[in-house]
Amino acid sequence: LEDVILVTAAELGERKIINLLINHFRKAPHQAVPFGDDVAGIYINSKQIAILKTDTLVGKTDIPPTMTLKHAARKAVVMNVSDFASKGVRPLAVLVSLTIPRHYSKSDINEIGAGLEAGAKEYDTYIIGGDTGEGIDLTISLMVFGITSLDSLVLRKGAQIDDIIAVTGMFGKTRAGLQIMMNDLQVTESWKKPLIESVLMPKARLQEGLALVKEQLITSSIDSSDGLAISLHELKNHSGLGMAITAIPIAQEVMFFSQEYEMNPEELALFGGEEYELVLTVRPENWIRANNVVRRFGGCLIPIGKVIKEFRVILTTNHSKRDIPIRGWEHFKAG
Amino acid sequence: LEDVILVTAAELGERKIINLLINHFRKAPHQAVPFGDDVAGIYINSKQIAILKTDTLVGKTDIPPTMTLKHAARKAVVMNVSDFASKGVRPLAVLVSLTIPRHYSKSDINEIGAGLEAGAKEYDTYIIGGDTGEGIDLTISLMVFGITSLDSLVLRKGAQIDDIIAVTGMFGKTRAGLQIMMNDLQVTESWKKPLIESVLMPKARLQEGLALVKEQLITSSIDSSDGLAISLHELKNHSGLGMAITAIPIAQEVMFFSQEYEMNPEELALFGGEEYELVLTVRPENWIRANNVVRRFGGCLIPIGKVIKEFRVILTTNHSKRDIPIRGWEHFKAG
Repeated sequence: LEDVILVTAAELGERKIINLLINHFRKAPHQAVPFGDDVAGIYINSKQIAILKTDTLVGKTDIPPTMTLKHAARKAVVMNVSDFASKGVRPLAVLVSLTIPRHYSKSDINEIGAGLEAGAKEYDTYIIGGDTGEGIDLTISLMVFGITSLDSLVLRKGAQIDDIIAVTGMFGKTRAGLQIMMNDLQVTESWKKPLIESVLMPKARLQEGLALVKEQLITSSIDSSDGLAISLHELKNHSGLGMAITAIPIAQEVMFFSQEYEMNPEELALFGGEEYELVLTVRPENWIRANNVVRRFGGCLIPIGKVIKEFRVILTTNHSKRDIPIRGWEHFKAG
Repeated sequence: LEDVILVTAAELGERKIINLLINHFRKAPHQAVPFGDDVAGIYINSKQIAILKTDTLVGKTDIPPTMTLKHAARKAVVMNVSDFASKGVRPLAVLVSLTIPRHYSKSDINEIGAGLEAGAKEYDTYIIGGDTGEGIDLTISLMVFGITSLDSLVLRKGAQIDDIIAVTGMFGKTRAGLQIMMNDLQVTESWKKPLIESVLMPKARLQEGLALVKEQLITSSIDSSDGLAISLHELKNHSGLGMAITAIPIAQEVMFFSQEYEMNPEELALFGGEEYELVLTVRPENWIRANNVVRRFGGCLIPIGKVIKEFRVILTTNHSKRDIPIRGWEHFKAG
């Protein structure tokens, strides 16, 4: 019956649309990474795997006010590199497919070029080709390519019971920053800046991801671009194990912001999205080494819970125990 | 001064926009294919080259009336595979990045999935990943991956003096078919069908390209998606040699059509675009073998001229000799 009634893309939402599409596709005999992980991958010989990833930034939905085209183009690179970071794969080359509205100026186009190059340079990769066409809206679609080997590939699947769940940074800043930008909120300057910066100049944790995977210190990993809650559910679903969270990693600026605007800081940290931290699992015996690896790059690994047998994502505090729902930013569902 | 005046994307056109962008990008140290060829490529070791390609189909500009979404999605695959065909590289895997308008129905999405899979299956390749988001207009951006070796890579560069210039099919059908569809022209049924078919169900010459390159029978090659005239100019510019054309390969249906509507059939064949034949150069001593290879797949290789020293693309007939201008379909310039 559902097929007869006119169900729209907006009602279906991103995840159901993806499932509809995937149902049409044969599985490649040499496919090395299952659908639904951060990247795609196929064997190119018995030992090596080509890793490929595409992600698109759309003008209408992905560029908030005061974000320049240079910021947006750089962010398109960061979005894609972040997925490579989560798998510990070096991005060797990037292709760019652009649709550009007719009225864009020459300086708009130069900004896009400069932003793409800024992102590529920052992560030590190169733009080697692409395609440009006219479109009603700006779309910046990137494709990233890299190579890895089977024994060094870390997936969303792989967590083991008692693994420590950890993140590479604190959460909630992007959602708070977006609210400031969208509603032109007046906030204390000292903590306004990092919140806005998290939207305009997000960072991918590439060096951290590469080093952690190279030294075989993590059992599973995902980037947090869909939000912390969804990332935890993905690690749960891929591993078949539960995630018990004891501390939500809320950024200090987000605490300030939510106090001033009477918002729930946990909401901002769990269900935000567009953040590019790694969410990963570490065997307890590897914890100190893993933490040292991340410190090498000026960051730190923040433990937020542990992997359990019970197939749920739960938040346990001194007083209570409750499920963290699957909720986060999803294309089509916003606005 | 040009930077101060507001020049728009529409005024610049596709080629100038691409040049503006490329100026920002560093060249990868391991880049194996120069910017401006049909595909991009980087060395993955001293012998092998990863070949990558992206091309985007845009709803507004690329889907004429009566073309279904299934046709459009399949065509997005053909567009990309055709570039691989021209280099003789097998497409091993495909990624798809979609932007879909909110109002699209579930059956629209299923049509897109079915069209993508139809194209992939036809060319014996697989869709292994992708990305879906909301957009104002439909965009189907594909990325294709393959592997080749340096000694078997055929580029736009490489033609030698006295090489025979050849094509894998006759030209003008797509332009004529589009005119019939856009203006709902009434034409004789028997030759209407192949003209419409060339728009709705274009074919990439993958088997021909793979076999010609594998048997080392061609010196340079390009796909004709920007039109025959532009393809010839590209082979000229990349080789540094001229192209003397003695016969324009005009399809018989196009002769009928242009007679009925008093159009110039040469115009339709030279400056059409959206056709996916190969335009290539063959050493005279390899001609018979090359022709036999293409016949194996039910086609034939049509000689249209030869490579000359004089750096021009000229059309020589019994009575005259004139330059073929650089003109063809270009994004932003249409409409």
